[in-house]
Amino acid sequence: MRIELFYDCLSPFSYLAFKVLRRYKPVWGFDLQLRPTLLGGVMAGTKNLPPIARPWAASTVKIAAQDGPRNKAYFNVPNMQPFPANFFGPDGPADKRGLARDMRYMRLLTSVRLRHPHLLEPVTAGVFDLIWADPNARDAKGNVIITEEILSAICTDAGISSADAAACIDAIGSDETKSALKGSVGEAIDRGMYGAPFIAITDHGVASQPAEMITFGSDRFEQLAFTLGLPWYGPDPERPSATSSKL
Amino acid sequence: MRIELFYDCLSPFSYLAFKVLRRYKPVWGFDLQLRPTLLGGVMAGTKNLPPIARPWAASTVKIAAQDGPRNKAYFNVPNMQPFPANFFGPDGPADKRGLARDMRYMRLLTSVRLRHPHLLEPVTAGVFDLIWADPNARDAKGNVIITEEILSAICTDAGISSADAAACIDAIGSDETKSALKGSVGEAIDRGMYGAPFIAITDHGVASQPAEMITFGSDRFEQLAFTLGLPWYGPDPERPSATSSKL
Repeated sequence: MRIELFYDCLSPFSYLAFKVLRRYKPVWGFDLQLRPTLLGGVMAGTKNLPPIARPWAASTVKIAAQDGPRNKAYFNVPNMQPFPANFFGPDGPADKRGLARDMRYMRLLTSVRLRHPHLLEPVTAGVFDLIWADPNARDAKGNVIITEEILSAICTDAGISSADAAACIDAIGSDETKSALKGSVGEAIDRGMYGAPFIAITDHGVASQPAEMITFGSDRFEQLAFTLGLPWYGPDPERPSATSSKL
Repeated sequence: MRIELFYDCLSPFSYLAFKVLRRYKPVWGFDLQLRPTLLGGVMAGTKNLPPIARPWAASTVKIAAQDGPRNKAYFNVPNMQPFPANFFGPDGPADKRGLARDMRYMRLLTSVRLRHPHLLEPVTAGVFDLIWADPNARDAKGNVIITEEILSAICTDAGISSADAAACIDAIGSDETKSALKGSVGEAIDRGMYGAPFIAITDHGVASQPAEMITFGSDRFEQLAFTLGLPWYGPDPERPSATSSKL
């Protein structure tokens, strides 16, 4: 079985899905293919709007304020941080000062995918942690600070040599990297992506299901597991949140 | 513990949530309070758009085509039918010929709530089945046919006398009914509803949680159960889809 995760490290639900899939690799036994994309490109390509930019955004605040903390407990991600203050720039989604318009980190992951695919998973984990799980990555105002030095350290922490990390950083602005990332966004949209994360499952061997099973978000894992005849213990199999005890 | 379900029988995810909550009543032991609302009123009051009317609706079709059948299996609702052909009228969401603009069935449930609250649950089940689970309720074109006779039969099947059922039908157009339904919509929006179903949990006795826990949709039950320290076996506890076996 192959599970492709199309993600953007800016997306908190991509972070949760990445956590779940890493935990289930030894449980379900599958090949995890990480596919860096750009959420902004996916949104633009499908006419989708960021939740905060939808006309009914203000009405979703009350539930979101409870859903976030509940997810933090349920997904067992105790270090998860609130939204970065600079998720968008001060002038909104189009403001280039926001993380949403900072292409460097997803281009870096694309360059790692091209050069060191076997290390894409730990580098991805480092970028996700930087944005969502490391309080020390934030300034006093809650902005996540991203510099080339920080990105380089994530690469070397993941096992890439300093020289190779420097080459990956250099490649952030290359046409090859930009073109590969753009290609992934286009491919993902063609296959059904309209938000992040997008998950595609192939080689699953379940004849009753489509050859390519696709889904969106981080809340369909139990549904997918059931459909594929795989066990589901909750989002962290080491800390089961579901039970099959007899009623 | 009290669980209030604010729903519209037009909403397929309300149907799924209603099924799950009925099944879990004996498992979790709670007071289920059914609160009929009008999805159209909630959407208008929060500036929300029906999924099909959002600019990115076309991009969601591929995943939705798989998610529906997977939910049918996972939620164990083998009789669930496709969307009624007349969900909206031929001219779209504002077309009065569509079920989305037919106020009768949710007004009927409001009138039953006012007059026979102890029978609201089986009448609600009858209306949900009419729209989502009864192939015989549809004409050859897939339109769900709703008449006063059909609504009356749902009432009497649920245990309301013929005379009382006639009174409930008569009350569909009364100011008292309309005002009560409008009041429920306003109350629900104030409490955080922006789509259907909306679920509010109170008297839960879990000090770490807000006194009123709120959520949206039919895909947060495991999260809620975990947060409340309640068991989760999947959407049908009689046919567990989760497991807690040792890894």
